[in-house]
Amino acid sequence: MEAAAIVKKIKTLEIQGAKNVALAGLKAINLYASGIKSNNRKGFMRELKSKSLLVAAARPTEPALRNAISFVLLRLSECKSAADAKKTLASEVRSFSKNIENMIKKIGEIGARRIPDNAVVFTHCHSNTVMEILRRAKYDGKKFEVVCTETRPLNQGLTTAKQLAKMRIPVTLIVDSAARAFIKKCDMVLIGADAITSTGDVVNKIGSSTIALIAEEQRKPLYVAAATHKIDPQTAKGFLEPIEERPGKEIVKTMKGVKVRNPAFDVVHARRISGIITELGIVPAQQVYRLVEKLI
Amino acid sequence: MEAAAIVKKIKTLEIQGAKNVALAGLKAINLYASGIKSNNRKGFMRELKSKSLLVAAARPTEPALRNAISFVLLRLSECKSAADAKKTLASEVRSFSKNIENMIKKIGEIGARRIPDNAVVFTHCHSNTVMEILRRAKYDGKKFEVVCTETRPLNQGLTTAKQLAKMRIPVTLIVDSAARAFIKKCDMVLIGADAITSTGDVVNKIGSSTIALIAEEQRKPLYVAAATHKIDPQTAKGFLEPIEERPGKEIVKTMKGVKVRNPAFDVVHARRISGIITELGIVPAQQVYRLVEKLI
Amino acid sequence: MEAAAIVKKIKTLEIQGAKNVALAGLKAINLYASGIKSNNRKGFMRELKSKSLLVAAARPTEPALRNAISFVLLRLSECKSAADAKKTLASEVRSFSKNIENMIKKIGEIGARRIPDNAVVFTHCHSNTVMEILRRAKYDGKKFEVVCTETRPLNQGLTTAKQLAKMRIPVTLIVDSAARAFIKKCDMVLIGADAITSTGDVVNKIGSSTIALIAEEQRKPLYVAAATHKIDPQTAKGFLEPIEERPGKEIVKTMKGVKVRNPAFDVVHARRISGIITELGIVPAQQVYRLVEKLI
Amino acid sequence: MEAAAIVKKIKTLEIQGAKNVALAGLKAINLYASGIKSNNRKGFMRELKSKSLLVAAARPTEPALRNAISFVLLRLSECKSAADAKKTLASEVRSFSKNIENMIKKIGEIGARRIPDNAVVFTHCHSNTVMEILRRAKYDGKKFEVVCTETRPLNQGLTTAKQLAKMRIPVTLIVDSAARAFIKKCDMVLIGADAITSTGDVVNKIGSSTIALIAEEQRKPLYVAAATHKIDPQTAKGFLEPIEERPGKEIVKTMKGVKVRNPAFDVVHARRISGIITELGIVPAQQVYRLVEKLI
Amino acid sequence: MEAAAIVKKIKTLEIQGAKNVALAGLKAINLYASGIKSNNRKGFMRELKSKSLLVAAARPTEPALRNAISFVLLRLSECKSAADAKKTLASEVRSFSKNIENMIKKIGEIGARRIPDNAVVFTHCHSNTVMEILRRAKYDGKKFEVVCTETRPLNQGLTTAKQLAKMRIPVTLIVDSAARAFIKKCDMVLIGADAITSTGDVVNKIGSSTIALIAEEQRKPLYVAAATHKIDPQTAKGFLEPIEERPGKEIVKTMKGVKVRNPAFDVVHARRISGIITELGIVPAQQVYRLVEKLI
Amino acid sequence: MEAAAIVKKIKTLEIQGAKNVALAGLKAINLYASGIKSNNRKGFMRELKSKSLLVAAARPTEPALRNAISFVLLRLSECKSAADAKKTLASEVRSFSKNIENMIKKIGEIGARRIPDNAVVFTHCHSNTVMEILRRAKYDGKKFEVVCTETRPLNQGLTTAKQLAKMRIPVTLIVDSAARAFIKKCDMVLIGADAITSTGDVVNKIGSSTIALIAEEQRKPLYVAAATHKIDPQTAKGFLEPIEERPGKEIVKTMKGVKVRNPAFDVVHARRISGIITELGIVPAQQVYRLVEKLI
Repeated sequence: MEAAAIVKKIKTLEIQGAKNVALAGLKAINLYASGIKSNNRKGFMRELKSKSLLVAAARPTEPALRNAISFVLLRLSECKSAADAKKTLASEVRSFSKNIENMIKKIGEIGARRIPDNAVVFTHCHSNTVMEILRRAKYDGKKFEVVCTETRPLNQGLTTAKQLAKMRIPVTLIVDSAARAFIKKCDMVLIGADAITSTGDVVNKIGSSTIALIAEEQRKPLYVAAATHKIDPQTAKGFLEPIEERPGKEIVKTMKGVKVRNPAFDVVHARRISGIITELGIVPAQQVYRLVEKLI
Repeated sequence: MEAAAIVKKIKTLEIQGAKNVALAGLKAINLYASGIKSNNRKGFMRELKSKSLLVAAARPTEPALRNAISFVLLRLSECKSAADAKKTLASEVRSFSKNIENMIKKIGEIGARRIPDNAVVFTHCHSNTVMEILRRAKYDGKKFEVVCTETRPLNQGLTTAKQLAKMRIPVTLIVDSAARAFIKKCDMVLIGADAITSTGDVVNKIGSSTIALIAEEQRKPLYVAAATHKIDPQTAKGFLEPIEERPGKEIVKTMKGVKVRNPAFDVVHARRISGIITELGIVPAQQVYRLVEKLI
Repeated sequence: MEAAAIVKKIKTLEIQGAKNVALAGLKAINLYASGIKSNNRKGFMRELKSKSLLVAAARPTEPALRNAISFVLLRLSECKSAADAKKTLASEVRSFSKNIENMIKKIGEIGARRIPDNAVVFTHCHSNTVMEILRRAKYDGKKFEVVCTETRPLNQGLTTAKQLAKMRIPVTLIVDSAARAFIKKCDMVLIGADAITSTGDVVNKIGSSTIALIAEEQRKPLYVAAATHKIDPQTAKGFLEPIEERPGKEIVKTMKGVKVRNPAFDVVHARRISGIITELGIVPAQQVYRLVEKLI
Repeated sequence: MEAAAIVKKIKTLEIQGAKNVALAGLKAINLYASGIKSNNRKGFMRELKSKSLLVAAARPTEPALRNAISFVLLRLSECKSAADAKKTLASEVRSFSKNIENMIKKIGEIGARRIPDNAVVFTHCHSNTVMEILRRAKYDGKKFEVVCTETRPLNQGLTTAKQLAKMRIPVTLIVDSAARAFIKKCDMVLIGADAITSTGDVVNKIGSSTIALIAEEQRKPLYVAAATHKIDPQTAKGFLEPIEERPGKEIVKTMKGVKVRNPAFDVVHARRISGIITELGIVPAQQVYRLVEKLI
Repeated sequence: MEAAAIVKKIKTLEIQGAKNVALAGLKAINLYASGIKSNNRKGFMRELKSKSLLVAAARPTEPALRNAISFVLLRLSECKSAADAKKTLASEVRSFSKNIENMIKKIGEIGARRIPDNAVVFTHCHSNTVMEILRRAKYDGKKFEVVCTETRPLNQGLTTAKQLAKMRIPVTLIVDSAARAFIKKCDMVLIGADAITSTGDVVNKIGSSTIALIAEEQRKPLYVAAATHKIDPQTAKGFLEPIEERPGKEIVKTMKGVKVRNPAFDVVHARRISGIITELGIVPAQQVYRLVEKLI
Repeated sequence: MEAAAIVKKIKTLEIQGAKNVALAGLKAINLYASGIKSNNRKGFMRELKSKSLLVAAARPTEPALRNAISFVLLRLSECKSAADAKKTLASEVRSFSKNIENMIKKIGEIGARRIPDNAVVFTHCHSNTVMEILRRAKYDGKKFEVVCTETRPLNQGLTTAKQLAKMRIPVTLIVDSAARAFIKKCDMVLIGADAITSTGDVVNKIGSSTIALIAEEQRKPLYVAAATHKIDPQTAKGFLEPIEERPGKEIVKTMKGVKVRNPAFDVVHARRISGIITELGIVPAQQVYRLVEKLI
């Protein structure tokens, strides 16, 4: 597949998920790089950066894509020649997928230690990073149960419930509206993140900000599990993280005279987060941004 | 239909809704009364009270039923003879339905005045009393719009949306999880009540307590619309208002290894309520109980 | 002066202040009454009530006027004849002014007891009822000092400061913006009221709601001093207490391209009030309304 | 014993406990009454009232004493003659002790219903009313356990623990400082009251206000168990409930250069109380005062 | 002008404004430097540092001055000779003014992105940095309006209003006391800073802490716009940022017996700040200090 | 003494106190080092690290021990030979004790500046670091007084009171339950720390979390005084700081049927801390962790 074809797939949402989009973006850049004629280091880098901007623009709401590109460009800056840069780029792309998996595995290890024995863990929607923590905690011999919401309108909570049941982790499914009744009796709340801003606010599936409000009211620790590539450097420059609004028909078929609104995400305030579990350790939300400042 | 048959229908939930249950209960008592042989006032009343306890016990979680009975018995206490009592009882039963309608109409009038022009009103589930306020506000020429949740698992919010659309009141439907995003931009929250306790706490459809928490966080006034027959005197005696738990299959078909929990109601704290709109006026939640203390 | 002339003066704000307006209203009704021809009790009362509505409508935002009228009509309802009613009315009007003074004197006595020795009392704007409490506390031998805001835009705080200085009560004047810095070091906040709603919310000079917010944040008791004729029964019927917006030129002379907004009052939430000091005792804000329910 | 001797014992704290002091006060008044010569009703009542004031003044910080006297005088006001009043008084004094016991028994019944099965109940200090609720809940077959503080400096919590152990109610004793760690895991907090003010604030053993703050933070219901004779009408008139300061040596023997302070009570704010369990039912703190307004 | 004369002008407040004071301080140091005889690098630096301390002491409450000096000395530390250091110093002083302008321009760019289209922005007092953000947002084509307080006693808000009107940005002027009524309806609050402490607290014009409290209550984002030279490293060493108290006559002419207090600043707590907009990006208040730690 | 003997003493709690344990651990490592035969740098370091892990494991709940070891190993990493490393190690151990003293002295200097003249400082338990701040403030000529709790069950507050009295600092002793009554009237709260987590939460003597809650409620600044070696890097890896539970007999002799619970510590949330006073300056709790990230 050509670089342009990949970029198109990113644009049209054919490729989805933070990790997949970032990986595809790197592949596209690698393909572009192999086509660059200039043997001169400076010229090569100039052209590569212009292509990179093009790729990054294919999904402006995906920080993981931008971060992957920034990280690789940073690495290339130490290369002495165009040839060296090409080689390094190719190797980075090859190791990228494995690196992400390692990050998530590391988060699993760290996060699992925060689940006390006999705990009730409350979660919302479906997050691979959260699932890895729960899987690891089970593997480490922890006894605990999970309460998860159905997560309307797309019911990703059912996927969470099914996978947990398969892992033989006791799981209870509830409607989104019952969150407060069950958070009251849980020991901790654990959610994923779609993006993290420069002030430590977390963008996640609609309903997350309400769950954070309830966790604060009920004095339950709320942990966010997220690799550092979810941090969005654009927010430091003032840009607001865009909130996607999805079609109303996901909720209900057309009803005459009734408008249907369907925002997909909301924002959890930094001060309501007990800690962000990253591959670099558990840090306060106000701190996580500094972990990647070299990319900015 | 015989008194016993009615009582059975109340027990088996064949008869539903605060007003309908209370009316049926009174009818049953009336039927029982017509069968009482004693011409002696004291003897008649003794027998009637024992039948009344029996009827009230048919739906122990319905304060409107108990209150209707208490109210009628109070009226009878002023009667001079068994015959007089029988006549009064029959007449009370006849006028009961109309009385309730008058109460709700009165609440509509009062509540409509609290809806500011150009307001956005947020509501949850489906309440006839709330609908009457909105209908009346429209009738009074107020311009406003309504945001309502779908109210999982039974989606009563769709009924609300449909009826509002029919009245040509602009209405927006959202998933329950999006409540916080929309309460942020609304001007007031308006919900009904299934029961009100002696300390002013309001039992209502699951999700109401979360909506009240959000309204408090976002400093939006939260009004509860409820006739005083929703107040439960039993709670003054220490009894906790029971919270019904409904079958999990209302949420999702059986999933192997997944437990499904489905509580139908939760409790809005008195201090989160800006006012209760009753047929006797708008009063603080801490006050509403005194409105009916003569029934206790 | 004729009744109609008085009503006009009330309408045009020539007569001001809760007490003065109420007194003028009663005088107008008394004048109207003396002109009623009907000797028949029922006929007399019918006509009197219609005149009373007319007088009450002259200042729809003044609860003291409505309350005075309701109170007097209630008294007349016990009269046996038109002549008796006329006499009673005349006597009520005569004693009205003295009654109000007694109410305020009583509040002074009660409120003065709440001022601890060596206290710093924070106040805002100018309230005769508050002044009476402070005067009485001084008279009772209490040692205390007062901090008062200038209360822009009309600087009523300067009147408060001057009068306190005259009474030899130590007083400090500050800008409105400095309220938080000084409430931090005060022992209690004491303000008056323009109107009290059925849910115990208090309408008072702009800035009061901020002072109440600060008092809550700084955990300082906030007392409202107000006779029960400030309670507005209309609010129980759903009407919102109207907030007067005054001319911008009170703040600043015209500035090209700059809009000036000047709302005169704001609303102190019931839950931020430690107690309302009335002539009937100190009661929680949620309770004060029941003190006058017979008028409603 | 003569009336004056009783009054002296009240003054010197020889007689202690709300109930005992109230009973002794009534006995003194009864003795005084039997010495009144006047056969004339008015004269008798005048003299009796003056004696009553004298008795009430013997313990100005005990609302139960003042309330008992007010209540009895209210009863006498319906008597037609001096002789009738004397007889009624004697009978009231005889039945007083039993009345209090009935009140506490009633509170036990009502309060026991609020203890959920398998609950953990947190309490502080030692209150007979609280003990009656716990005793009754056990008697009613409820399974629950209690956590109680040692309650420095006089360690009344040890009495609570011992008595509960005797009733075979599982009980855990902790230091006062550990309250927050254990309230986190309890289901409700239940304390007694030394006095209740007109605004619903509760005066109780030092530490109670902190426990109420923690209960609010941890969203645990806090109930106060108190018969209505603990309500202090003086507070409605502006008087502050006095807080007793006890000798420092209760805490520690003299330490050179170290001042020891030992206040015995603090104040639980009305808004932190979920309900006050009285013999007349469970009501919001803001409401309880109206229960006795006829005494004021 | 001689170095000593500049230092005097700084001391006597003849030179004002963070930027102007810092620039004048650097100029004084440059003048001192040109007079240093020592050709030896070490000797030169020793003497320069002693002069720098002298200049910094001229305005101990101005962090921008201290920071400018620290920054320049840091740069000189890399110089190899006295001559090189002199040249570098001269060049730094020349570029300083431009650097500050660039910082503010950068903040304008970043901050403008945080102003949503159709927003209502609330501001207080007059801040050049805030004005640059608003100017830039207008320039970027954003449609928004501004509400500003008059900011007693010196009415700097009128300057803000006039300048905005000149830029054709719709602006509404209100009294300081009306802040809460208008923050309720705004979308964000944006203020400047006089100094920022090591714990992220912001010192700004009196009234700012109240505005921050209201923004928190009303859940409106509060941004502080400030270049990093406003951060005061002295606060890390324990020193408290001093709060200037200005003459009472700024508020009111002498009133007999009335004390007038006029503190010029108050402190906005770090946790009430949504983000600090610096030239290095938008960061949480708790983070901003680390941006300059190399200066400390 | 041999290395193994020291390790044993650490294990059996014969050696106590953060500083003493860390020092003993370093001594043990030094003794182990002198026994390592390998002259090869790599081999020496490998062996030394293995011994270090062994020593660190002797007290898994003491972050100061782990941090001291990490710090020294970091220093050795720059050594060129085994001999050089041995020498450096010996010198580090010699200077360690002095380093800690310098850290605490530095904290004293910084912290003393935060104590305003005429302040009332509230403290809990006994902390050497807090004592050094108070000693230094007195030495600097500050006038202030201290309120301290007795700190049940071991009454360390009496030691605090005695030492302060000896320094002629006015001190008041109270029971733990009276904390809220006295924090209300204090100007700041100052406590020590047993450990600090990666998210800025502070583990300290039981009761500290309640004091922090009260300080937040009463808006009093709460400072924690702690050298950076109290920060526990293990918490960044997910481990929870263990909370020691001590024997019940410290509270009360066995009481039949009564369980006694005695947790020794609780956790102060980062957001309730105004600043942590470290030897590197006063920083927000969310920041302190980054101060030692090089050790992690």
